[in-house]
Amino acid sequence: MLARVGLFKTIYRFQPSVVALAQVNESHSKAAMDKFSLPERFIGTEKSVWVEYIQLALKHKPLNLGQGFPDFHAPENVTKALAASATSENPLLNQYTRGFGHPRLVNALSKLYSRILNRDLNPNSEILVTSGAYEGLFVAIHGHTRPGDEWIIIEPFFDCYEPMILGAGGTPRFIALKPKRTSGNISSGDWVLDKEELEGLFNEKTKGIIVNTPHNPTGKVFTREELQVIADLAKKWNAIVISDEVYEWLVYKPNEHVRIATLPGMYERTITIGSAGKTFSVTGWKIGWAYGPANLIYNLQIVHQNTVYTCATTIQEAIAIGFEQEIARYGQPDCYFESLARDLLPKRDYMASFLREVGMNPTVPEGGYFMIANWTALADKVELSTEKDQYKDYKFTKWMTKNVGLQGIPPSAFYSTEHKHLGEDNVRYCFIKRDENLQEAARILKEWKARQ
Amino acid sequence: MLARVGLFKTIYRFQPSVVALAQVNESHSKAAMDKFSLPERFIGTEKSVWVEYIQLALKHKPLNLGQGFPDFHAPENVTKALAASATSENPLLNQYTRGFGHPRLVNALSKLYSRILNRDLNPNSEILVTSGAYEGLFVAIHGHTRPGDEWIIIEPFFDCYEPMILGAGGTPRFIALKPKRTSGNISSGDWVLDKEELEGLFNEKTKGIIVNTPHNPTGKVFTREELQVIADLAKKWNAIVISDEVYEWLVYKPNEHVRIATLPGMYERTITIGSAGKTFSVTGWKIGWAYGPANLIYNLQIVHQNTVYTCATTIQEAIAIGFEQEIARYGQPDCYFESLARDLLPKRDYMASFLREVGMNPTVPEGGYFMIANWTALADKVELSTEKDQYKDYKFTKWMTKNVGLQGIPPSAFYSTEHKHLGEDNVRYCFIKRDENLQEAARILKEWKARQ
Repeated sequence: MLARVGLFKTIYRFQPSVVALAQVNESHSKAAMDKFSLPERFIGTEKSVWVEYIQLALKHKPLNLGQGFPDFHAPENVTKALAASATSENPLLNQYTRGFGHPRLVNALSKLYSRILNRDLNPNSEILVTSGAYEGLFVAIHGHTRPGDEWIIIEPFFDCYEPMILGAGGTPRFIALKPKRTSGNISSGDWVLDKEELEGLFNEKTKGIIVNTPHNPTGKVFTREELQVIADLAKKWNAIVISDEVYEWLVYKPNEHVRIATLPGMYERTITIGSAGKTFSVTGWKIGWAYGPANLIYNLQIVHQNTVYTCATTIQEAIAIGFEQEIARYGQPDCYFESLARDLLPKRDYMASFLREVGMNPTVPEGGYFMIANWTALADKVELSTEKDQYKDYKFTKWMTKNVGLQGIPPSAFYSTEHKHLGEDNVRYCFIKRDENLQEAARILKEWKARQ
Repeated sequence: MLARVGLFKTIYRFQPSVVALAQVNESHSKAAMDKFSLPERFIGTEKSVWVEYIQLALKHKPLNLGQGFPDFHAPENVTKALAASATSENPLLNQYTRGFGHPRLVNALSKLYSRILNRDLNPNSEILVTSGAYEGLFVAIHGHTRPGDEWIIIEPFFDCYEPMILGAGGTPRFIALKPKRTSGNISSGDWVLDKEELEGLFNEKTKGIIVNTPHNPTGKVFTREELQVIADLAKKWNAIVISDEVYEWLVYKPNEHVRIATLPGMYERTITIGSAGKTFSVTGWKIGWAYGPANLIYNLQIVHQNTVYTCATTIQEAIAIGFEQEIARYGQPDCYFESLARDLLPKRDYMASFLREVGMNPTVPEGGYFMIANWTALADKVELSTEKDQYKDYKFTKWMTKNVGLQGIPPSAFYSTEHKHLGEDNVRYCFIKRDENLQEAARILKEWKARQ
């Protein structure tokens, strides 16, 4: 874990004083000191559960099932492709490439998605390569938000959606997935939207809705019928859909990933976001993409051009090579798009079983590599009063990290302020980990249970 | 060049029609169609000289001295370090690292700049790693711009400064470097600011000034005295300085790179931007950084956290290794920080000499790897009337690309609209190219001259 956590200090919790600056000011007035404070549009976007929990991990050195990244080797074909590109005979593979995407990569993406979507995607005008799906979300939101525009966000949500909308001057409107049952065996498919509640959020200010399928953190894979409800509302209100599909290949059979862009009349109003990090288990490579109709992607290009301009050539070349190889074996069992989910299935089931064994109630995910679990049956085995946080899941995850040595993420981080209580009963664990680490997690929990 | 230019289409010149979207709209009103047009804060930021000239290069296949990147191999120590990181025993080198900078890299940067600045830089709070210096500029500008804030920009300027300020709701104020002489041997040191004009731009709305030294495109290396004038005004008006020093190691003796952050009382109000791409001749790796006092860097962290969140781990590891090696041989002749400028010096002088030979008048740069040259003595040898552009340097560079087979960049792209005429007499060429390509450029120009 050393490479991940490194040297941290408590610099993130508050704005450092501006005393140093004020000392050299000719004016010591408050106005002079405030001049360099955070601009108002970023207020409320400072706190990050990731920064806080990475720091926690550094301090207490738990077994960390918090962040979503594999702790095993990425597939050799892509890591070797990166090594080969870096040391290639062609010196230009280490120099700037086309700003909107390395030609070899946008061509590979066009080939793949043209086949999947059954329509010809223009590699230059309908696909944009970004610095991770994260920048893809950023340019999609900023490129399509005027001050006052409303975006509908489905809770729980990947926590960057809200600050990106706020930073662009937009207004987020929230609706929560709610579980149809809270006892017995729960599937992520039991988490559903209320149709009337969703309908009530659309209005003439609605610029769009962000859909994440497979969903983080519940693992829900939206069904065609569920997506059709969203699609019908988007069309009725002339809204667009940002479809965050970074876990598109991590779907457990018989569930099926449906792309909302493939529903009738929806390609024209959908921006789909993908991730090489999730697709090839290389989260540290920071390459993602957005695809959609040229008129919508155009706005993303302009924002991208004025934010990072271009992405790493050497890595794009390696990912292009990876895609070319997977396209060649597409639909075959050894295609990584299929083999990774197959490899993760027993890990998922193992985690669900040991969580149940200690008394938690997991929501078994249909996709993705996270599992949320209700921990409240164990409330009498933790001393939450020793933790100062506002929300129970923060208290629980911190207490467990410090006292039991196992770290998860508090799902209330993925809710708006007014809905955080909906996440408090759960904890999120990540299961894209080596078997020995999952076994160690099981051992830690069982010993803790026995101790009590 | 294939890797650079790839498949391009004329998608950038105009906003694609929104007909596709309108067709599925229930309302065909103009308002419905306008809903997805570019938000107003990006209007005026669409045009990019790079997109236009890369496309031109694709079409006419000239010898391209336009974009600034080496066409020779990057140093083996860093390219081999990237290959080794990608295929390391440690699988985590391909996974997410700390968002504000990979620990090994911020530690190396801290070690280097603490030594150079003669002050201890905290690696976690005073240094931020970014997706290229480009993202460094983006987060510096966005993190410190409220609507209405003014930024002073020195012309000619790296063209992203203006759209970044506009996108953040700020107002750019321009002042041009002007050559003290326009005939005879001109050095980039002859390009100077008028002190009274500069003073006149500062006012209570001034948030800061962007200084670029060594300067692109003139090659000017600001002297200590020139920087002191800027520093005094910044202190007087409680303004900050964004110091774009991406060419910090590309300075030709006896010129010396002075960091404005080292002037008395200036560290507290300076954000300095650096680039691994320029430092190690790997422009395609897209890693840069910003350093400065924690209270100013804090704002950049928040914007970064909501834009790309983290940068490529594998590449940061390789750059860290590169820095560790250069720090070990710092001040020695084989240190890449010194050897690259030494290797470029004969290329600079060769270019100046062949440009003079054909009748252009180059400004010999004190730093960087660009050279601007006045081409107007050759005006009777070109047929500018065949080109439709508004500015003479656009006409000249396009005509040369199409008819002579040598491409440069029009410097008027680096001026505000009202000052573009100041750039029209020059062309910018890049000389970080293999000797045979520079010789080929000389041959092309001389043959063209003889032909006339």
